[in-house]
Amino acid sequence: MRIFLAALVFFSGAAAAQSSPADAVAAAKVWRAGHAHQIVAEFADLLRVPNVAADPAGLRANAERIASLMDLRGFDMRIVEIDGAPPLVIGERKSDKATRTIAIYAHYDGQPVTAADWTSPPFEPALYSRAKTDGGKPIPFPRAGEPVDGEARLYARSAGDDKAPIIALAAAIDALDVAGIAPTSNIRLIFDGEEEAGSPHLPAYLKKTGAFFSDVDLWLFSDGPTHQSGAAQIVFGVRGVAGMDITVYGPNRGLHSGHYGNWAPGPGWRLARLLATMKDDDGRVLVKDFYKSAAPITKADRAAIAAMPPIDAQLRETFGLAHTEMNNAPLAERLLLPALNLQGLESAEVGPGAANVIPTSATASLGLRFALGDDPKNMLDLVEAHIARQGYFITREEPDAATRAAHALIAKVTRDEGYPAVRSRLDDPAFTPLIEAARAAAGETLVLTPTLGGSLPLYMFRETSAAPIVILPIANYDNNQHAADENIRLGNLFYGVDVMAAALTMK
Amino acid sequence: MRIFLAALVFFSGAAAAQSSPADAVAAAKVWRAGHAHQIVAEFADLLRVPNVAADPAGLRANAERIASLMDLRGFDMRIVEIDGAPPLVIGERKSDKATRTIAIYAHYDGQPVTAADWTSPPFEPALYSRAKTDGGKPIPFPRAGEPVDGEARLYARSAGDDKAPIIALAAAIDALDVAGIAPTSNIRLIFDGEEEAGSPHLPAYLKKTGAFFSDVDLWLFSDGPTHQSGAAQIVFGVRGVAGMDITVYGPNRGLHSGHYGNWAPGPGWRLARLLATMKDDDGRVLVKDFYKSAAPITKADRAAIAAMPPIDAQLRETFGLAHTEMNNAPLAERLLLPALNLQGLESAEVGPGAANVIPTSATASLGLRFALGDDPKNMLDLVEAHIARQGYFITREEPDAATRAAHALIAKVTRDEGYPAVRSRLDDPAFTPLIEAARAAAGETLVLTPTLGGSLPLYMFRETSAAPIVILPIANYDNNQHAADENIRLGNLFYGVDVMAAALTMK
Repeated sequence: MRIFLAALVFFSGAAAAQSSPADAVAAAKVWRAGHAHQIVAEFADLLRVPNVAADPAGLRANAERIASLMDLRGFDMRIVEIDGAPPLVIGERKSDKATRTIAIYAHYDGQPVTAADWTSPPFEPALYSRAKTDGGKPIPFPRAGEPVDGEARLYARSAGDDKAPIIALAAAIDALDVAGIAPTSNIRLIFDGEEEAGSPHLPAYLKKTGAFFSDVDLWLFSDGPTHQSGAAQIVFGVRGVAGMDITVYGPNRGLHSGHYGNWAPGPGWRLARLLATMKDDDGRVLVKDFYKSAAPITKADRAAIAAMPPIDAQLRETFGLAHTEMNNAPLAERLLLPALNLQGLESAEVGPGAANVIPTSATASLGLRFALGDDPKNMLDLVEAHIARQGYFITREEPDAATRAAHALIAKVTRDEGYPAVRSRLDDPAFTPLIEAARAAAGETLVLTPTLGGSLPLYMFRETSAAPIVILPIANYDNNQHAADENIRLGNLFYGVDVMAAALTMK
Repeated sequence: MRIFLAALVFFSGAAAAQSSPADAVAAAKVWRAGHAHQIVAEFADLLRVPNVAADPAGLRANAERIASLMDLRGFDMRIVEIDGAPPLVIGERKSDKATRTIAIYAHYDGQPVTAADWTSPPFEPALYSRAKTDGGKPIPFPRAGEPVDGEARLYARSAGDDKAPIIALAAAIDALDVAGIAPTSNIRLIFDGEEEAGSPHLPAYLKKTGAFFSDVDLWLFSDGPTHQSGAAQIVFGVRGVAGMDITVYGPNRGLHSGHYGNWAPGPGWRLARLLATMKDDDGRVLVKDFYKSAAPITKADRAAIAAMPPIDAQLRETFGLAHTEMNNAPLAERLLLPALNLQGLESAEVGPGAANVIPTSATASLGLRFALGDDPKNMLDLVEAHIARQGYFITREEPDAATRAAHALIAKVTRDEGYPAVRSRLDDPAFTPLIEAARAAAGETLVLTPTLGGSLPLYMFRETSAAPIVILPIANYDNNQHAADENIRLGNLFYGVDVMAAALTMK
């Protein structure tokens, strides 16, 4: 589908002068000083459109809104569709001064919301003077020409993850166009609507878009948070991800815990004892070979980590943690290793709802994160092999009577096969212009981070194009991404405008 | 409150002849052969009145209905009330031929229901040709004079636990009155409305009823199931009960499991590792001194257990268990020991609802059962001491920032203090007439069981009166007590009529 709207190009590309990233940042600052109200209002309008997987119509409305926003900035936009999947939004804007083609990725879908946990509704953007957890009070949206405090926070699902880059890019284009500065790259856009679900249709979408991205020289992914120190960062990789639910069994019906307690085996005890074999008290994963395939930590990695601002002590305090895993080992180093997370536990009820019953089953939801070199299937297989070594018979189905009679220990394993990590070399010369441009926006505190702890489906792009991949996050680290009260610090949104303008004019 | 209704006493007590339990059982069989439809209909009417703790009006309606039923049988009934508690229903019927006074206890409240788990609604009694799990089909309620198959099952909350004894007693009184057989005991009734909640107000109720129960010679508790072999049983004790919820903590907010996974400690891992220290793979509780205070198993206990029909293998098959705790140790022996049950687990979500978050907390709901000699407070203290020995700081409140900063491992412990076990001596001569009477109804297969695995607040009565205490259950063991699809096998209801008639005429 093609959206036809009048493009608001203030200066034509042909008339624009070639300028440095510093010029672009200066233009961005001028633009947003005068138009903060407009940037925030446009962002709030986009955040009002619900974007959870359970609401396909909402996702579609987001896609249309975004295509329209970029159409206004002179992009030739297309909404690509596959049955049963949220649309992929792609677009293109050429530049006469282009020396390369860059592709910019963001995603417009958000994590599911549990509205009851939010202190303001997730799809009614609310502006606060600062973080709610820091005593922030509701403030009105800025009026035309009014300055906006960078510490103010805008609360809504996807304020941080990941609609902010879309608005930042739109504002950066406005700033450059108004200042008559031509981008040094042809720009391709790709906005994913299924990232929070692991982008299952993205490979098919990339196939469907054919050669559209084949000549890209650099992939720029805008997602994830900036560094926890508050400094801006460029990130050179992501961890892979997969999931596994494990259900173990007790009696085939709920039994009275008095009449059968200490005779009938309880599934909760079995699950606890199984899980206890997987990770030690200090967080070391005990699954055989779990750390074996992870790429070794290089000298360049260690140098980059050493140059990063120290943040661990502050994070521990912020998160109420007296201690972190592996005797307080640095976060940046931990993220170069695979992780085994326990994301949920469930068996019958606890608290006032608990009944005096020996439950029939107990379930654990595991989340795996992978380092470069880990094969997701192999890693899931290792965990399954570990379960089997604890004496469990592994099945994909609820056990029937024959299975129950044959095996004292039965584990139903459900796998989410996930995808692998991707990491670029920090010293790849392709990144030098971008690093210089980002420093023009962020200053010398710019952090170069070997990998994001989270996951993005970058592996799919590696299959489409060999071009280098890098991540340029803009959201504040405490944006409550994936949780209730997600927010963006406006200072981070404005940094996003500056760094997008800089990146579009990199040498 | 006193309920005045016309009493339907067919023959006056003065005119009644003294008869043996065998005569009483014969009279009961005659009565129920002609009036099965009436017994079942009266039962169904009672089961239609919802009786869960969340519905005080429903509980009150049950109390009134039961008082009315017994008033009709010549009992002088009283509904006793304490603010904020379900009513206690008590009553009395004297007999000219009485050589003692017995008190009969049952409870009219039921376990909470999760209606969605039931295959027929819990408060719409439904008659089936046999157990639903055994291919039973819905059948109409019997018409007047129609015979009823003893294998038929009536499904409703409290069909087994514990309204059946109330209806059985009413029918037994009808049978004796019609046959002109006088009870050999004065009868006191006590119907509890809060048993499933641990009868927290029963001590105050017993105080409030003053001397009403002080001259009782024998306490007859009608609750719990008959033996799993299908044979009738008399039970000489109950286990004690208490509860404990344990919550352990991770970060003070949900953290992205990618960005912080294998750095921030997960509360689920902590809980699993803590629980794994409490019970070994074979079900032995590892809490120090957990088995220390339990009364030793006596020769009389062992003799009674040896005389019980073997049921363990059949139960394992029925419940889909390849193996039971302590290398398939006999259930009857296991019930003479205290139990540590894991009744529920909860941390964030599992399955499709699981998010990529490191949860803030994980909770386990423990249920304890006690042997004779175990002091509930001491047993809960032992579990707490065990938690502390694993390095946990124990609190009663959600931890604040200072507590979090001071302690890596924090466990919030919530205790339900519960009550102790009670057991009578199997060879107490006070029980001989009752055992003989029950044999008249049940035959020589009558099982003498040292203790019920479940709990009843018998300790409260021990404090009121030193009279011997015994339990006379009537419900089938597979009545799904405490769970969905609770039911009574009509043959068990009819046995209840017979054994009540026999007990009322014991020597």
